[in-house]
This record gives sequence, structure tokens and C-alpha cells, in this order.
Amino acid sequence: MNYQKFRTIKPEIRVLGVDDGVFTPRTKGLVPVVGVVFRGGYWLDGVIHTKIQIDGLDATNKIASMILNSPHYKQLRVTMLNGVTFAGFNVVDIKKLHDKTKLPIIVITREKPDFEKIRAALKNLPKSEERWNAIKNAGKIIEIPIRGSKNEKIYMQTCGILEEDAVKIVHSTSTRSNIPEALRVAHIIASGISITEPQ
Amino acid sequence: MNYQKFRTIKPEIRVLGVDDGVFTPRTKGLVPVVGVVFRGGYWLDGVIHTKIQIDGLDATNKIASMILNSPHYKQLRVTMLNGVTFAGFNVVDIKKLHDKTKLPIIVITREKPDFEKIRAALKNLPKSEERWNAIKNAGKIIEIPIRGSKNEKIYMQTCGILEEDAVKIVHSTSTRSNIPEALRVAHIIASGISITEPQ
Repeated sequence: MNYQKFRTIKPEIRVLGVDDGVFTPRTKGLVPVVGVVFRGGYWLDGVIHTKIQIDGLDATNKIASMILNSPHYKQLRVTMLNGVTFAGFNVVDIKKLHDKTKLPIIVITREKPDFEKIRAALKNLPKSEERWNAIKNAGKIIEIPIRGSKNEKIYMQTCGILEEDAVKIVHSTSTRSNIPEALRVAHIIASGISITEPQ
Repeated sequence: MNYQKFRTIKPEIRVLGVDDGVFTPRTKGLVPVVGVVFRGGYWLDGVIHTKIQIDGLDATNKIASMILNSPHYKQLRVTMLNGVTFAGFNVVDIKKLHDKTKLPIIVITREKPDFEKIRAALKNLPKSEERWNAIKNAGKIIEIPIRGSKNEKIYMQTCGILEEDAVKIVHSTSTRSNIPEALRVAHIIASGISITEPQ
């Protein structure tokens, strides 16, 4: 594993935050996945998107090619994901995503992932071992205390970045809430574009 | 005409910025229209969206119902549009939009609208008089000097708001560029979600 080492974390570091849209669980179809390019925790510089299958196996490849084909790719220093399960149990393998994009990956969740529950759910799906391997590839769960709070935590998994650098980036880009602004905004956009009023 | 008078313009005033996505001119189909709720010029609070016909006649009604059905509606103080022609020549009638939503409307363009060119283009479309009336209903074009610049200007048309209040809102929300942040971000999102990489 190659670790991207950061000599300093610039306040305007370009980060990509990725989240999926809203969908009806256990149906078939495509779900939008939105990537938001933020300059640090303040300025939105770009939006990219792709579509993935509900409970499919294409999340890793689709997100990788969304990133590689983006005009922002060369500026990006880190990719952040809102969890590793997208569009149901279309699991992102962050080792593969790191390998394909050469970018460090930081996965953030507000709740601690419940592996027993995930493993049980995967059993009902085709290629459950492949999905479970991707879950395991997300690696060790690191608790991060929320800045300014003694008790509240968020949870992080990483690939290709030192833990201390990842913590610094998460804290410096969480300007508006407890999670990095790129992820907060990716969630708002992905939700906002996937619910259409009745025609 | 009722004018919304603002005693003070709060720095965190909730504004909606509306822009359309990318499409191939003179084809048929639907184009995404994105509304971005900003708290002043800094924080993105929400994203809403609808779809309208290329060169259709549904922009005013679709945008009005997108606004009225939004959970953010009660917080909104102003709607800003990136021009009045959406998805080709699907013209927003800002008098009707103001009437339906009861919100002041501010239209911003970087270039001065060229009415002769617009009128000529409209002649090739059905209901060209209805479209032309909507163009005229956008009213007087007001030049606004860009803050900190002697020569550069942007252009504004308004409905239901005093010119001096509109200028103050445009200036206080243009934090990152020469146009209000809600419109800059609406443009980025609408473009970002309407271009999909090949499947």
C-alpha cells in the first residue's frame, strides 16, 4: 500500500465528497451518485455524477471512472465517501478505488458500521462474498472525536493516507456540521435531484 | 404590483438560485432545472429540482410548483433566476412567477439581453407572442456595477422588489464571484447532473 503523505494540509485543499441519491430499496433501477468538488470546507468548485444499479456490483468502477473522467481530477487530493454501501448494497471497494484513481480515500459514517447486520443482509444477494470482501477492504474503523465535543464521535475508514493526515483533513473541512462540507453538500444535492415532484 | 420591502437585508437571508442544465439545442426532450437554497452567500441549505421541455411553455409553472412544493418555501425571501430563457426559449414570465409564489424575483445576466435577437429567434417557435410577452414582462434592464470594479457590470431585472433592495441582496450574496453564490452554484449543479459519462 502506498500512503500519500501530506507535508501540510492546505486550507484550500481540493476534496471530492461522494454520496448517492434516494431510491426505493429492493427495487431495480439506477440511482444517481453525485461527486462534489470542494475547495477546503468553503467553496463548491464542481459537481460530477454517475448512475449505479440498486444492489448492483458497479459502484467501484462507476465512481472510479466518474473521478478519472472529471476535469477536476488533477486538482483533487482526496476522495471522501459517505459510507461504502451505495444504492443499497452496491459496495465500494476502497482498495480498488484507491488503486484505480491513485487518490487517498476517506470513508465517513455518523454511526459505527454494524458488520453482523451487513453480513446477514448480504446473504440474500448474489456474489455476497465479493461484497463482503469489499466491506472488509474498507479496513479498521477509527473513531474521530467531533471538534469541540467530548462525547460525540464520527467514524472513519481510510485507504492510502496516514490516519493523522486523514483526521486533520476531516476536521479542517468540517466547517458547517460534524462532517466534511463536501459530504454534507453531496448528500443534499444527491437527495435533491433524485426526488422529482409529480409531473 | 406589490413590492416586498426589506427593512434590513440580513446576511443570512435565504435566497433561491435557479438555473437549467445542458442540452442539445433544437432537439426534443426534458432539461433539468435546479434550485439551490443558500443562506446568504455562504451556506448551501438545500437543492430542489424539476424538469422542463426544450423550447416548451412550461418553465413558469414548473418552477413555481417546484418552489411551492419545497420544504424550504417558508424560509425563502427571494428567487433569483439566471436569465428568463430556460431550456432554449422556454421563457419564465416573472410577473406570473411572482404572482404564484408571492416571492420577489431577481433576474441576473452577465450580458445585456439582446431583444432584437431574441424576438427574431422566437418567430420560429409556436406561440411566439406568448413567449415575447413573457420576455417583456421581465421589465426594465438595470445595470449593476460589480463591487470593487469601475467598468464591469452585470444586468438585473426584477419583480416585486424595490431596485435598491435588490441591488443590496445581489451584492451581499455575491461572495465568490460577480454573481450571487446561489446562482453560481445552481449553474455548477445543473451542468454537473446533466452530463453523464457514457454508460
